[in-house]
Amino acid sequence: MMDVTSISKNCTRTEFVGTAVLDTIGLVISGADEQLLRQMGLGMKYRSLGVYSSRTGAAGQLTALDEAVKSTNTEILSVELPRDTKGWGGHGNYAVIGGDTPSDVRRAIEIALSLTDKYAGELYISEAGHLEFAYSSSAGKVLEKAFGAKLGQAFGFLAGSPASIGLVMADNAVKAAEVEIVNYMTPDKGTRHSNEVILAFSGKADNVKEAVLSARQLGLELLIAMGSYPNVPGTSYLG
Amino acid sequence: MMDVTSISKNCTRTEFVGTAVLDTIGLVISGADEQLLRQMGLGMKYRSLGVYSSRTGAAGQLTALDEAVKSTNTEILSVELPRDTKGWGGHGNYAVIGGDTPSDVRRAIEIALSLTDKYAGELYISEAGHLEFAYSSSAGKVLEKAFGAKLGQAFGFLAGSPASIGLVMADNAVKAAEVEIVNYMTPDKGTRHSNEVILAFSGKADNVKEAVLSARQLGLELLIAMGSYPNVPGTSYLG
Amino acid sequence: MMDVTSISKNCTRTEFVGTAVLDTIGLVISGADEQLLRQMGLGMKYRSLGVYSSRTGAAGQLTALDEAVKSTNTEILSVELPRDTKGWGGHGNYAVIGGDTPSDVRRAIEIALSLTDKYAGELYISEAGHLEFAYSSSAGKVLEKAFGAKLGQAFGFLAGSPASIGLVMADNAVKAAEVEIVNYMTPDKGTRHSNEVILAFSGKADNVKEAVLSARQLGLELLIAMGSYPNVPGTSYLG
Repeated sequence: MMDVTSISKNCTRTEFVGTAVLDTIGLVISGADEQLLRQMGLGMKYRSLGVYSSRTGAAGQLTALDEAVKSTNTEILSVELPRDTKGWGGHGNYAVIGGDTPSDVRRAIEIALSLTDKYAGELYISEAGHLEFAYSSSAGKVLEKAFGAKLGQAFGFLAGSPASIGLVMADNAVKAAEVEIVNYMTPDKGTRHSNEVILAFSGKADNVKEAVLSARQLGLELLIAMGSYPNVPGTSYLG
Repeated sequence: MMDVTSISKNCTRTEFVGTAVLDTIGLVISGADEQLLRQMGLGMKYRSLGVYSSRTGAAGQLTALDEAVKSTNTEILSVELPRDTKGWGGHGNYAVIGGDTPSDVRRAIEIALSLTDKYAGELYISEAGHLEFAYSSSAGKVLEKAFGAKLGQAFGFLAGSPASIGLVMADNAVKAAEVEIVNYMTPDKGTRHSNEVILAFSGKADNVKEAVLSARQLGLELLIAMGSYPNVPGTSYLG
Repeated sequence: MMDVTSISKNCTRTEFVGTAVLDTIGLVISGADEQLLRQMGLGMKYRSLGVYSSRTGAAGQLTALDEAVKSTNTEILSVELPRDTKGWGGHGNYAVIGGDTPSDVRRAIEIALSLTDKYAGELYISEAGHLEFAYSSSAGKVLEKAFGAKLGQAFGFLAGSPASIGLVMADNAVKAAEVEIVNYMTPDKGTRHSNEVILAFSGKADNVKEAVLSARQLGLELLIAMGSYPNVPGTSYLG
């Protein structure tokens, strides 16, 4: 019989890179099995894969991974959003990157993990629901693949749950500054049936930031009106 | 850095209408942004939108919204069922209504919120699973859009989780009285992969009520046989 | 008003067969209603239905049901995987079997319930995520319908959440021994948006078992590296 307590919390497997807040784990596969690669349907170009996923949160971690891929010799292969958040109304995330060497993908996953603590600072979870925001001054290929962000433009993201709060924030954001909607999601459209309305938008940096900050203020007022103050797993980074 | 505790629980935003049990919030958008309206895909007829959603429960709140829309100058534009219930096996709800003026939609949302406490009385949540029931003596356009209810006929609804209980209640209901099935949902059919079987049916008032009450008695016996008594967030209103 | 505490936990309904770990309940419908049968879309051959479902876990219970159907005069009609696990990142299960007589299906459900405690022994749930494993020396029609198992061959199953752990286990399993992948699932492919990667495989008994055990060891090391030890609702049965 398996005795799980005989296993150490200090993992020595070569596949293990590290963990971060929000039940985030980063792993590396050095030479992926060919039978498995065919099943994955992500092409046969890379045998070195980086794997990154969290139980809770999507935009923050994907913004971290976006910077990681930009600054390393790696490519984003897939981004998926499971319906998770450990009982809350949103998503987690699951992404696969490829690189020519195990050390390339390991470096990218290390960067993503270290930046995740920062970007998790714009997640607000109360007893009633949650809000998530993200901002990038220059979107890369991870944010393009995940949310349709315009490459090289500033990118903003907002999600609100219960979904009504997300819609009202979305309306507020696009009125606050001139931005272009690149993705609009609801429980039945684009999300994996999460209890959220999500808006992703591109534009000039000042405009995008103003839209995010305006929506955040309104969203927090509405979420708090539901009766409890949110916890913030990181430190708010948008001022 | 954002200090969330500086925000009051007494929301003064014009968008805020109110809250109700089961993490229900009702909001109003007075003049929806055109770029957003196009993304929403609900037509351009209305600029005044009412938004209504909950983390837990669907049939009860939608029965409340059905009465609200019937008694005001508003129209139901969309009903979506997120997979939520805060970790339980069912849905929440997310609905958008339109009206010619902000006061029309605000009035409808106010009515829906006040009736939600009543209709939440037929939700039963135990440690093992949940049951939800609804009854309307005359279904309106919200129940038609959400569940295929026959307009103007009595409407009954049952959901059971784990899904087995829902199926056995469904069989019991249609044997208990002559009713017409208008919607049958399972984890892979119609639901958003909730752990429920759901039956919605129309017919004569006495028959529909008898079918609901018979299924409720059986469902409660089976749910309680799983080892714990359910909580009821409201007050049972079906006798 | 309904007084739920007036109902006994000792259910005397003929529909009730019993319960098992992981909020599993087994029920029987002796003569299913024809209007309901048509809605179910599972054919009209059987009027005696067995219904089996759980809030948490899939492969373990379906392995139990597989043995139950093999050893009785019953047929598997449907297997569905709701997105559930009571707030965790995986599935529950919901299956319907048919038989010529109520006693046939009741016997099968009884067997499935009694075996579920055993097969639940390979489910590991920590604060961060979960792992699930299953092994059958000879897959029957339930495992074929649920996961594409090769009839009569040994069958192995692994699931890991967060999804990254599942992918790394999958790679490990197919390298550990010669097995044939029969199903590969991710949050957006095959699962109901669970936060898992799942691999199902068939092959020779020794190979399949070696693949499962190798992946289990790696998966447990990675899950425990996330900071907490898993609970096991049953007793590990794979050695």
